[in-house]
Formats: sequence, structure tokens, C-alpha cells
Amino acid sequence: MGDTLVQEGFTLWFTGWSGAGKTTLAIEIEKALLELGTPYVQRLDGDIVREDLTRDLGFSKQDRNENIRRVAFVASLLSRNGVATLVSFISPYREPRDKARASCHNFIEVYVKCDPDVLISRDIKGFYKKALKGEIQNFTGIDDPYEEPPNPEIIVDTGTMSVEDARDVIIRYVKEKKLIRCS
Amino acid sequence: MGDTLVQEGFTLWFTGWSGAGKTTLAIEIEKALLELGTPYVQRLDGDIVREDLTRDLGFSKQDRNENIRRVAFVASLLSRNGVATLVSFISPYREPRDKARASCHNFIEVYVKCDPDVLISRDIKGFYKKALKGEIQNFTGIDDPYEEPPNPEIIVDTGTMSVEDARDVIIRYVKEKKLIRCS
Repeated sequence: MGDTLVQEGFTLWFTGWSGAGKTTLAIEIEKALLELGTPYVQRLDGDIVREDLTRDLGFSKQDRNENIRRVAFVASLLSRNGVATLVSFISPYREPRDKARASCHNFIEVYVKCDPDVLISRDIKGFYKKALKGEIQNFTGIDDPYEEPPNPEIIVDTGTMSVEDARDVIIRYVKEKKLIRCS
Repeated sequence: MGDTLVQEGFTLWFTGWSGAGKTTLAIEIEKALLELGTPYVQRLDGDIVREDLTRDLGFSKQDRNENIRRVAFVASLLSRNGVATLVSFISPYREPRDKARASCHNFIEVYVKCDPDVLISRDIKGFYKKALKGEIQNFTGIDDPYEEPPNPEIIVDTGTMSVEDARDVIIRYVKEKKLIRCS
């Protein structure tokens, strides 16, 4: 396989409040990467990993961190093996995100930021309403903290930007870092 | 990346009693695959996954199966994304192995077989002596069952074969299935 051109793996780590658009954005990025000819792209989010990897875990700080630890381990294996890995979890605590940064290959932290007032007024899944009423516990931003990333590689404000614009910012970054090759 | 030649992922799943040589064999296969130019090779065994993926698990049937479920999930992601994935766990129960077969890409079950008398007389880690004395519980083959694979793709008998011969059998199989390309 001497003539094989091997893809460089990387990790796009989407962090931010519930409903900010992390997974929506990851899905758009996945499409864009595949269209650009990236051979291997893998998304990881709660829906993808819950059944097989994290079904024993809840929403306490300890369980959230254990969740992120397992996901970061999987992302580290994928990214080190040439896979464009797109991870979208609230991941509210700084320490496990920094551990993920240390273990994943070409780690790019994407802070998917959105004004809380916008999130609460949108409230697509109805979670904020329930959390504000106290019907959901340990809800990030309401009765659980979100520790902002101090130095994310990319910040996109989905309160003011379209998904397409946010996608383009990220694709441009990945191209500039020469993590995907474009004809 | 239109000129990229993409590697075909596959899963070599080594199952067998403790001390039969599963990981020793996986390490030899890893070396051989890298020498043959396979760009991405990932081994998964207890030492590699315990800290990050399965540290909450013990040796009950339920915990063993949960262990295999998580490992199989990781192997499925890797193998579907072009990685030559080498999994070595006792994996004594048929059902979770068959689930792994269903989810992993190009699944190849390698039954690393060895006469129990040979294993007990070798007893490299001293585990059999302890298990026979009752000092270790739930030890596969002693007080816990090992369900033999009914139709493994490959059987290697490490009681009678050298590691090099067993390695060559497996590499030949992978070449014949055109899962690695060789110049």
C-alpha cells in the first residue's frame, strides 16, 4: 500500500448549552466533509453512544465526566487512526474537555455559543421550560454550571449566525490547518 | 482527495482462555500488518481499555458482557472507518461475540485454542493455580464457562503451533480476503 495517501485524523469537539445547535452543526459538517471527499467521518453524540457505551450513566457531575471520559477515549482512537471525528456533547466541565484535548489527535474545540435568552425562548425540545419549573434536575445553565472554554479554537454564535455560516467558518479552519485536502 | 486509496477496515476478534496467547498473537499481527504497509492498526485489549472504558466492570457474567458490548461498539466504529482492528478478550460467551460479529465490519473470529492441561502447566501469570485453589472467582474454564465458537473463521492451536505459524495463518487469511493490499 505504498501508494496510499493516508487521511490525517482530527477531532472537532462541539461544546455548548443544550439546544445551541451542536449536533445540527456536526451533521452539516459531516455532509460538507464527505462532499469534499474525506473518506472517513464519524459523528459521536448522545444518540449514537447511549445504547452501547454510556447507558449506565445519568446527569450527575460524576456521570457526565465519566460519559466524556469514555467518549474522549473513543474519539482519541478514531482521530489517531485517520478519522475525521465530530463529537457533540454539552460537556459542561473544563477538566474533562482538557483531558480530551490532551488525548485526541488534532483537537479543535468548537464553542457553540448562544445567548441563554435565545435558547430559552426557542426551547425546541421543551427542556428549558421543564428545567425552569424544576421538573428536570441537573440541567446545564439552569441548576447546573457550564464552564466556558477559555481558549477554544473556534467560537460560533448560533444566536446570530446561520448554520451554513457557522459550518463554513469551521470548514475553512480545517482547510487552513491542512487537515483535509481539497482539489 | 480523489486520488486517495482508502484502506478497507476489518476486525480480528481473538477469543479463548486466559493465557492462550490472544494478546501475544495480536501484537505479532499488528507488527506484521504495519510492516505490510497497513496505515491504521488499532489493538484493543484489557490493558488498553480498562482505564478509560471499562474501569467500572468486574468479572460477573453481566459485567463481562457489558465489557464486550462496549469494546464491540468501539471496534465497530474503528473497523467501519478503515482501521485494522485487533480485539483480544477472553469473551467467553457466545451471544455478545455474535452481536460483535453483527456490528463490526469484516468480522473475523479467531479462536485461540489451547489444551487446558497445557495452560494449567504453563500458567504464566499464576492465575490458574489461584483459581484452582479458589483464590480467584469467576475464572473462565475453572469455575466459569467458556462457550466455544461454533463457526470461527480461523482456529489456531497455540498448544501445538508457534506464535509465528499462528500469525502467518491469520495474515494469509486476511490477504486472501483482500482486506490488505500487498505489493
